[in-house]
Amino acid sequence: MTLPSVVIVGAGFGGLRVARGLSGAPVDVTILDRHNYHTFVPLLYQVATAGLEPEEIAQPIRRILRGAPNLRFRLNAVTGVDLARRVVTTDSGEISYDYLVLAAGSATSYFGLDSVVQVTSALRDLDDAERLRDQILGAFETASAEEDPDRRRQLMTLIVVGGGPTGVELAGALAELRRHVLPHDYPDLDLSCARILLLEATDRILPGMPPGLQAKALAKLSELGVEISLRAPVADADANGVTLSNGEMIPAGAVMWVAGMRAPPLAEAVPTARDSAGRLVVSETLRLPGHPEVYAIGDMAHVGDPETRPHPMLAPVAIQQGALVAENILRSLAGKPPKRFAYKDRGTMVTIGRNAAIAHIFGLRLNGFIAWLIWLTVHLVWLIGFRNRMLVLVNWTWNYFTYDRAVRLIRRTASRQHISNNNEEAP
Amino acid sequence: MTLPSVVIVGAGFGGLRVARGLSGAPVDVTILDRHNYHTFVPLLYQVATAGLEPEEIAQPIRRILRGAPNLRFRLNAVTGVDLARRVVTTDSGEISYDYLVLAAGSATSYFGLDSVVQVTSALRDLDDAERLRDQILGAFETASAEEDPDRRRQLMTLIVVGGGPTGVELAGALAELRRHVLPHDYPDLDLSCARILLLEATDRILPGMPPGLQAKALAKLSELGVEISLRAPVADADANGVTLSNGEMIPAGAVMWVAGMRAPPLAEAVPTARDSAGRLVVSETLRLPGHPEVYAIGDMAHVGDPETRPHPMLAPVAIQQGALVAENILRSLAGKPPKRFAYKDRGTMVTIGRNAAIAHIFGLRLNGFIAWLIWLTVHLVWLIGFRNRMLVLVNWTWNYFTYDRAVRLIRRTASRQHISNNNEEAP
Repeated sequence: MTLPSVVIVGAGFGGLRVARGLSGAPVDVTILDRHNYHTFVPLLYQVATAGLEPEEIAQPIRRILRGAPNLRFRLNAVTGVDLARRVVTTDSGEISYDYLVLAAGSATSYFGLDSVVQVTSALRDLDDAERLRDQILGAFETASAEEDPDRRRQLMTLIVVGGGPTGVELAGALAELRRHVLPHDYPDLDLSCARILLLEATDRILPGMPPGLQAKALAKLSELGVEISLRAPVADADANGVTLSNGEMIPAGAVMWVAGMRAPPLAEAVPTARDSAGRLVVSETLRLPGHPEVYAIGDMAHVGDPETRPHPMLAPVAIQQGALVAENILRSLAGKPPKRFAYKDRGTMVTIGRNAAIAHIFGLRLNGFIAWLIWLTVHLVWLIGFRNRMLVLVNWTWNYFTYDRAVRLIRRTASRQHISNNNEEAP
Repeated sequence: MTLPSVVIVGAGFGGLRVARGLSGAPVDVTILDRHNYHTFVPLLYQVATAGLEPEEIAQPIRRILRGAPNLRFRLNAVTGVDLARRVVTTDSGEISYDYLVLAAGSATSYFGLDSVVQVTSALRDLDDAERLRDQILGAFETASAEEDPDRRRQLMTLIVVGGGPTGVELAGALAELRRHVLPHDYPDLDLSCARILLLEATDRILPGMPPGLQAKALAKLSELGVEISLRAPVADADANGVTLSNGEMIPAGAVMWVAGMRAPPLAEAVPTARDSAGRLVVSETLRLPGHPEVYAIGDMAHVGDPETRPHPMLAPVAIQQGALVAENILRSLAGKPPKRFAYKDRGTMVTIGRNAAIAHIFGLRLNGFIAWLIWLTVHLVWLIGFRNRMLVLVNWTWNYFTYDRAVRLIRRTASRQHISNNNEEAP
């Protein structure tokens, strides 16, 4: 007898949680991902700022699945879904399913600014993070050999666009890099000319946080020397920097775009209703309308009425939804009705730098050293895999006590030259 | 008063040793390298076989130079040397020197087999190692989704060309990967079909070692399941595998070319005498004939008569030469005559796998567990930088006790698709 087949698209937090829930169950599970590793996305900014090695926040999917004989991995990019024939199309053929779980995460939103796509760095995956690290360090390498003081200042200007959690964490980490690491590496450079700008289109940072904690975060960033501009939407960007909607042009050595997220391209290939950010609209049982065998979860799903506010695009949402999908598939097999999703919000945390974080958890509003210790502990425990935890701990301990950053390698010379060439075109 | 300027091309073992010898001396030292990191080349094979992370065997050059105010780093690819005008040309302008040290290492020799360059992987730098890891793991990923048993066997055949120390270490590490790691990751694959072939053109492996140790190494490799072919020169290679000079075609999923080394392209740009492998011929004081201000050391130098056997292309040679060059530059500044180079051969070691190595050191011939412990200790102590040592130790300890491999990420999907496409073209 053939077991019912479950195909999971995406080995992020949500997809892996579904797999875990189906481990040992009488179903045949295939997980598809275009990478052979799971990425611990909340720490990408640490790779981008040379604090952690790329491999430390990634785990081979096959190792995660070890010992679960009904879970199988295939390294495939999924290009489409045929809901009528119940097959997904991949870069190497079709795979049919009895149950399908779409958990492909999110993509960067550029709000229609095509110019921005070409010249800024996103921070969605490990390649982005490594490229960004190369770009930031490459800008300082180029600056150290640059004679013209204006160009040198330009190269040492780093712009973070977007005041959400990623933007705040990135800006904080860059400020620490500038303060504790770069002065030793570049004794010839006057790092007081180095600027870190955080540009936010609205009138506040960290929109999901209580106003009191927003203010603490602003104060801490300023203390670290980050220049914050609120109500400063970016209208355009080119190789020399960004232009704000008020016409002000800011020259920069690197522009990081963490201003928005939208559904991944795969969502467009699914013939069903989508919300304004391209997310698939699913019922409260997390299933596509008219297709009770197809689930969508995490960043790419919008639960319930598309006019209402969706759940935040956070790992805990995807994980809780993943657990429910596994349960609902098993209930469906047992002939029971599906359960509805209810998000249990345990809170959110943002780290801003050494000894500083803000946390809004279990109804408590914490900031400073205590919040930072909680942040550290939660992330360490959360990181999948004992070995990675050990390495991350070694690296963090090293960074903490030496004020050093571990990695600082420029691995892709091409991006460095890209920067260097860009700046040669400067007027 | 301007200090005399010393330009060092290459931040390998030799170049860094020169810099160390000139730290604090009344000279202005500039080190040029196309990477911003120093690579611990002897452990590249561990990165290629997923045992260590790329960042663990690399160290930012700027951190190595910290605290030495007369040493400066510039991230530059050197393209030529004008001996008459005393300038080196780089990808971003010219740099003049009073003393020049050429220490740019080596390149892979393909013995004129152009076809081989396209389809095999070398193992000279960190990018090579990461690409090779991606290719090996990618071949097994493709195999796990392949229906045709012949193609699957092809994909699981890994060929190492060259029976020198790198080839032996690589083949041993691949055998351990096959035995201890891949069976858990690919439960669907019949790994008894997976083959590891070591092809050597001459009648022996490890040519520099005593015959008794060569035999021990052969026996250990066979025990690990490596198929060794002596007197098996490769005549051609294409996307499907290699062809031996006797006409035999061996299909493979990945071909690793570690058969020979020659001088790097920069050597050709220096207008001076070269030996048959393209190395610069230098006097016993390590200086170019007619140019007492220009030194060449390490893999790219041939000391003395170009008809005699050169020093082996090993890190200890480059390090000892680097120390002498620093001394000779200081002697030259003091008006003293230069010293001659005499290589102190402390021995060589090759690791073959878990608990097994052979070592010919201080006149002793060791093998097995003792040799392996010595190998481990020496390499750990040798690795530049305390932090890297700690991480490498953590990883090695983990690998040892769990029979697992740490990394196993496929980072460059392009190479995977390359493999997959190659095999789609197979007949």
